[in-house]
Amino acid sequence: MTDLYDVAAIGNAIVDVIAPATDAFLEAEGLVKGSMQLVDEMQSTKLYKKMAQAIEVSGGSAANTVAGVASLGGKSAFLGKVAADQLGSVFVHDIWAVGAHYQTQPLRVGPSTARCLINVTPDGQRTMCTYLGASTRFAPFDVDQTVIEGAKIVYLEGYLFDPEEARRAFAKAAGLARAAGRQIALTLSDSFVVERHRGALMEFIEDQVDILFANEAEITALFETDFDAAVKEVRKHAKIAAVTRSEQGSVVVSGRKTHKIAAAPVEKVVDTTGAGDQYAAGFLFGLSQERPLDECGRLGALAAAEVISHYGPRPQVPLKELAAAQGL
Amino acid sequence: MTDLYDVAAIGNAIVDVIAPATDAFLEAEGLVKGSMQLVDEMQSTKLYKKMAQAIEVSGGSAANTVAGVASLGGKSAFLGKVAADQLGSVFVHDIWAVGAHYQTQPLRVGPSTARCLINVTPDGQRTMCTYLGASTRFAPFDVDQTVIEGAKIVYLEGYLFDPEEARRAFAKAAGLARAAGRQIALTLSDSFVVERHRGALMEFIEDQVDILFANEAEITALFETDFDAAVKEVRKHAKIAAVTRSEQGSVVVSGRKTHKIAAAPVEKVVDTTGAGDQYAAGFLFGLSQERPLDECGRLGALAAAEVISHYGPRPQVPLKELAAAQGL
Repeated sequence: MTDLYDVAAIGNAIVDVIAPATDAFLEAEGLVKGSMQLVDEMQSTKLYKKMAQAIEVSGGSAANTVAGVASLGGKSAFLGKVAADQLGSVFVHDIWAVGAHYQTQPLRVGPSTARCLINVTPDGQRTMCTYLGASTRFAPFDVDQTVIEGAKIVYLEGYLFDPEEARRAFAKAAGLARAAGRQIALTLSDSFVVERHRGALMEFIEDQVDILFANEAEITALFETDFDAAVKEVRKHAKIAAVTRSEQGSVVVSGRKTHKIAAAPVEKVVDTTGAGDQYAAGFLFGLSQERPLDECGRLGALAAAEVISHYGPRPQVPLKELAAAQGL
Repeated sequence: MTDLYDVAAIGNAIVDVIAPATDAFLEAEGLVKGSMQLVDEMQSTKLYKKMAQAIEVSGGSAANTVAGVASLGGKSAFLGKVAADQLGSVFVHDIWAVGAHYQTQPLRVGPSTARCLINVTPDGQRTMCTYLGASTRFAPFDVDQTVIEGAKIVYLEGYLFDPEEARRAFAKAAGLARAAGRQIALTLSDSFVVERHRGALMEFIEDQVDILFANEAEITALFETDFDAAVKEVRKHAKIAAVTRSEQGSVVVSGRKTHKIAAAPVEKVVDTTGAGDQYAAGFLFGLSQERPLDECGRLGALAAAEVISHYGPRPQVPLKELAAAQGL
């Protein structure tokens, strides 16, 4: 099969609305710091009204990863649904601008483009409330077979387990990728996603996943145990697992092998939005180039460090140049 | 008359779309670096397609100034027209979020919310292409008498001379302000605006303007002479004139008096968008508090320095605290 893409990803197509906030604000709004919470349109509107002056940037976990892969010089494609509205146009513009392939038809009738309200506290932590809107309408029909079969790695986000249609599309994509002999990567996305869908996620990982991404909260939620035990456990279930631990770097395990990767240095953490997405971008790009696992981890760390040093979930400078400067 | 506001401003209600660009890109697109150019919807769409991944933030020259006045702790109000669309909602959210009064009815039928495509070159210079959209429909009917009569200073942007309806609204507001004994401030906005409307602007300055803002290009365009001669000339026409010169600071003249204000230090110029708007914010806030002119200039310099150190045309930190830290 021809390799059209290094990485193709399916995810929610979201525009981020990012504003600074205090810890007191999070408390007053009953928001769990660092988490992602689903909200309906009314809750979203209500919270937005209370938020500070914001910036709008294209987001969506897997879409951010696709942008990161492109920034590293990889060929990437994205599948996910926006509405035919202004924020949808913003999303489409930005994913095209990084050079990614994106052709999912926008939703003409129905909810508006998904938006994620992100409150960033002075410590740089992001707390997210997502209105999924049109992205829940991504359906099996939208899974472009040519894209899935033409990608070295098919990357799926755990967030897709929430909307029912998207979950069916997710299953279809995984089936196509598997049949085409492609590698499948999954991110657990969020510890609450894991809580909601532990059984189904576990089954999917067992059956289909080659590369699993998780952070500390997610991996411990998946196995309902502590970090060390969870890392031990994950070896039995995924061929490769990359577990991120913020400033403590990441641990990459594969069979009996373990690679501890240090976090790349950051002058000041401004906004952690996109850290995990960019780690995955670096890692997957490395894998697609058949680099050794520790190098993949270091590419991930480098991409994550860039993105947390500014507002917004996507690279602001070409990661390819950053990587070259680091000899990666 | 009760002072409801320190500053009330009328301007185009615009959402900025900001992306990094190279000098070669500007050349290829035939854009004059540092300028503001009006474009129609088709030109806007065409240019947007070629631009890099962007961020969306509320903008509009006078609206940025209103946000700056609010950030300094002043009471401010804005008048300007968005459409009832998603970008319009973003604009409304952001102007409310800073605590400014804003009640102009959005346009229900007609063009979409104005957007300004801003290409920022590596030297931090911004080059703007503005699609005025719904903001051209701001009409005399939209001039809220209570707001105008209740403001210590009424601030108008020269950009309003371009759309015909807005220009009539501008004249109405000036008339109301004058009748209520309020001060009128004007910014020349852009040297091409000055070229297009020199006669009308000159007449308006003569008859109505108490405080004139201009940068070097604008003031020399107005008087069709060199900088020193223009500064000499402006003394005859405006009670107070504040002329900004980027890193060379500003010159404030009033009658025979001249105050030279140094630019406030900036570590790295990231994006000059909003520099003039924030200078006006600091200056007008100072004036509304009856501070001496050199202090007004220093407040302007401080606000401008903050805004050019990051992407986007509005302050990202409370200017009130910055000013206090500088003993202003």
